[in-house]
Amino acid sequence: MKALLVVDVQKAFFNEKWGERNNHDAEEKMATIIDYWRKQGEEVIFIQHLSNNPQSVFYHKQEGFVIKESVKPMRGEQIFTKTVNSAFIGTGLEEYLHDRKISEVVIVGLTTPHCVSTTARMSGNLGFHTSVVSDAMAAYGIYDQDENYVDPETVHSVSLATIHEEFATVMTTDQLLTRFVEKK
Amino acid sequence: MKALLVVDVQKAFFNEKWGERNNHDAEEKMATIIDYWRKQGEEVIFIQHLSNNPQSVFYHKQEGFVIKESVKPMRGEQIFTKTVNSAFIGTGLEEYLHDRKISEVVIVGLTTPHCVSTTARMSGNLGFHTSVVSDAMAAYGIYDQDENYVDPETVHSVSLATIHEEFATVMTTDQLLTRFVEKK
Repeated sequence: MKALLVVDVQKAFFNEKWGERNNHDAEEKMATIIDYWRKQGEEVIFIQHLSNNPQSVFYHKQEGFVIKESVKPMRGEQIFTKTVNSAFIGTGLEEYLHDRKISEVVIVGLTTPHCVSTTARMSGNLGFHTSVVSDAMAAYGIYDQDENYVDPETVHSVSLATIHEEFATVMTTDQLLTRFVEKK
Repeated sequence: MKALLVVDVQKAFFNEKWGERNNHDAEEKMATIIDYWRKQGEEVIFIQHLSNNPQSVFYHKQEGFVIKESVKPMRGEQIFTKTVNSAFIGTGLEEYLHDRKISEVVIVGLTTPHCVSTTARMSGNLGFHTSVVSDAMAAYGIYDQDENYVDPETVHSVSLATIHEEFATVMTTDQLLTRFVEKK
């Protein structure tokens, strides 16, 4: 069994405070994968970030907490709420996947270097066969400890390079869907 | 209470298969920090990577499994053996730290993008106040999913940028030791 994890694709990321990002088509790619996944009868699981701080864009009463319309969960689909970057900490996700005999996890979402990377690292380390879809995720520019700016594309591509073949297999949406078709 | 985690500083990394690396003085910096830590009476914890594959440089009967002389544990210091990248998976480290009332974790070791980054991410997400020491760790060059080479310094610096202020505070050995002295 294969689960698709859709990580933190919430309206909070519409906020301008995040700065410039790469992969503006990522949500469109995610929607394509989600649609395909549902048609195959495989499970789509949504991960939703929650902050207990009323000032946060991820506070449950803020509009930002809501999952973006383009990747909206359907009735009956599982949503796990998390309060840290990893979808495996404090959520029961690991047990849920084991209970459903899901051994393969495909990850899409926001953002590549933080919640996606951390979730992929733990997924691989916990023994799930893990893939991440490079064009169905995105990064924002960040500043390092010396205030040097790292642009979104560099953050994204180096983050993927550091997880590839160590924690997860990095592939594109086309490669993922082709692989799916070949297995039929 | 503050613990220093010394991650995977094993002879396996002498092997040429890893390619070029940055921060050739990292072990010297680690030794300085370890020495200081011991003098302060704070706890030094060693993380040792183990592979069950006899062909691996981390197999327990291989010389590579041994911790490098320059950062050798002293009698009575705790060693946790792990089989994946994260020092928090399958080791009991989290419970150990809680039992000892250790709330602050400082991480040094090998390698920046893999075991150090993953351990730092989990440490922060599990609620430990986490720091990583930029010049007391090192990275090797890696290839991404399209066979593009990313040089060690880029791997190292972008890896640190992606964890800074999200999972851990990135600082140098000098900054760490200065902070320690200031708190006295």
